[in-house]
Amino acid sequence: MYYIGIDLGGTHMAAGVVDENGHIYATAETPTQAKRPYAEIIRDMAATAKAAMEKAGVAEEQIESIGIGIPGVADTDGNVIFCTNLGWRDIPLRKELQQYIQKPVYIDNDATVAGWAEYQAGVSRGTNSSVFLTLGTGVGAGIVINGHIWSGRHGVASELGHTTIVKDGVQCTCGKKGCMERYCSATAIIRMAKEACAVQPENAMMTACGGDAEKINAKVVFDAAKAGDPIAANVFEEYIQYLTIAVNNVVSFLDPDIIVLGGGVSKAGDFLLNALKENMPHYLMYPTLPMPELALASLGNDAGIVGAALLGRV
Amino acid sequence: MYYIGIDLGGTHMAAGVVDENGHIYATAETPTQAKRPYAEIIRDMAATAKAAMEKAGVAEEQIESIGIGIPGVADTDGNVIFCTNLGWRDIPLRKELQQYIQKPVYIDNDATVAGWAEYQAGVSRGTNSSVFLTLGTGVGAGIVINGHIWSGRHGVASELGHTTIVKDGVQCTCGKKGCMERYCSATAIIRMAKEACAVQPENAMMTACGGDAEKINAKVVFDAAKAGDPIAANVFEEYIQYLTIAVNNVVSFLDPDIIVLGGGVSKAGDFLLNALKENMPHYLMYPTLPMPELALASLGNDAGIVGAALLGRV
Repeated sequence: MYYIGIDLGGTHMAAGVVDENGHIYATAETPTQAKRPYAEIIRDMAATAKAAMEKAGVAEEQIESIGIGIPGVADTDGNVIFCTNLGWRDIPLRKELQQYIQKPVYIDNDATVAGWAEYQAGVSRGTNSSVFLTLGTGVGAGIVINGHIWSGRHGVASELGHTTIVKDGVQCTCGKKGCMERYCSATAIIRMAKEACAVQPENAMMTACGGDAEKINAKVVFDAAKAGDPIAANVFEEYIQYLTIAVNNVVSFLDPDIIVLGGGVSKAGDFLLNALKENMPHYLMYPTLPMPELALASLGNDAGIVGAALLGRV
Repeated sequence: MYYIGIDLGGTHMAAGVVDENGHIYATAETPTQAKRPYAEIIRDMAATAKAAMEKAGVAEEQIESIGIGIPGVADTDGNVIFCTNLGWRDIPLRKELQQYIQKPVYIDNDATVAGWAEYQAGVSRGTNSSVFLTLGTGVGAGIVINGHIWSGRHGVASELGHTTIVKDGVQCTCGKKGCMERYCSATAIIRMAKEACAVQPENAMMTACGGDAEKINAKVVFDAAKAGDPIAANVFEEYIQYLTIAVNNVVSFLDPDIIVLGGGVSKAGDFLLNALKENMPHYLMYPTLPMPELALASLGNDAGIVGAALLGRV
């Protein structure tokens, strides 16, 4: 049997035909054009899925189920509660999609889906419990407990990016202050770097950006820090302090087998992972506390399609 | 069948004979005398359990298993990893106890045990997932997911009191700074009240304590706030802000069916619960987010024995 995975993003949607081992046979992609009525977007989701099936030479009868990763939150009845990038609130996604393809439809948050992909076919395969953190524009998370996705009673669990780590801290896009994603996302690194450059503009980050602080991104900061620039190293150090707090909060809360770092920031690789590992003992309840394995995500962009597809794999 | 529950505290240990519905048939109690060698303490635990069995008229053959709630953390092999009040590190509690009573022995953190009691026989009975917060000298927590206790891979999960909510905040006894229990425990309320009284000593809290700020406890603060004292009301308001952050972090992380407040602070009852409920929408990701039920613990001091006993109830 095969599974369809759809990765619904704010700018593009991608669909893929996937087998039970997470192997992708074919994919198709379409612009989301987020401002359209939701019915049109969902119609195109079905069309993109069918295009991927055609490319893969797989018939509808061979499809077990369809899974969708959304940049938002869905309830257990297949409705999207909210999806900020698309401006969606209470959208009957499952029901609409089943007009075009009569298969079971599973929907979950995109970070949850990526964490599920790592559990089914990536770095956390073979574990019993895992927490996946996607460190990108924001911070998302995916929780697996006893081999099952945990999305909570109302589907709104694993929003770790919106746990508070700094009371009255930096204003978050969600309306609250001091949310973890304001300190642990790529956006946070850029903010910290810009703040540092405003005070001390003579540094390798500014050189790399031709003197334009607006061009700073997370990679610029990591590259400069790796190369030994002291200002960039301070920014990196500041970021690691916050990331360690966030990761320790996961340990203190759930103590899973493994905590996986994904998203754009995780492309810094071992430079990031090793700094985090070295700093962890300072934030644990006591330095020798047994703690989860820390690892980098292994599936990259495929995780969205693979994880969505395997939502249907019981 | 019957179960033995042992509530091991820093000053007293209590044992009880409990049935599968959480009904207590008899209890016995002994001073812990924490400074003794652990072997003596564990010998007395067995003796206290046997005293409770004798009072209940229950023979050893009728006992299914023994459960123990400890003010610390145990691993899955029955060893106590640490237990600060008793000065224990890596103590083979299960093995020692089985020298005296040859029954299966289950050990878990006292807050986890109290949360399990509420799930099995109290306010969260009939739910699928719950997070219990014990707001006392410190803050402990008990997590139930899909009807099972979640203690993590290494037994160190649900230490919510030691998640960070204020980076570089108040020094915690654990060595870190800004831990949640520094802001949400009875100890935190007392600290906040003392700070307020140092600035404005003319208030109902000081009156209630005969002018001695050292006598302030959580009840004094709540009583004065309820009676309309403006200084106490400010302290209460400050506390509620932090408690709301902590509770919202539970929602954003796990979104359980129910979040239960226990421990000494929860004796403030509806005055506390209603203030929390009113404040929650300001801290959720958005104000109408579906959220867990919030409730007060229902079992009081019995929860320690009942929950420990029912650790053995699969």
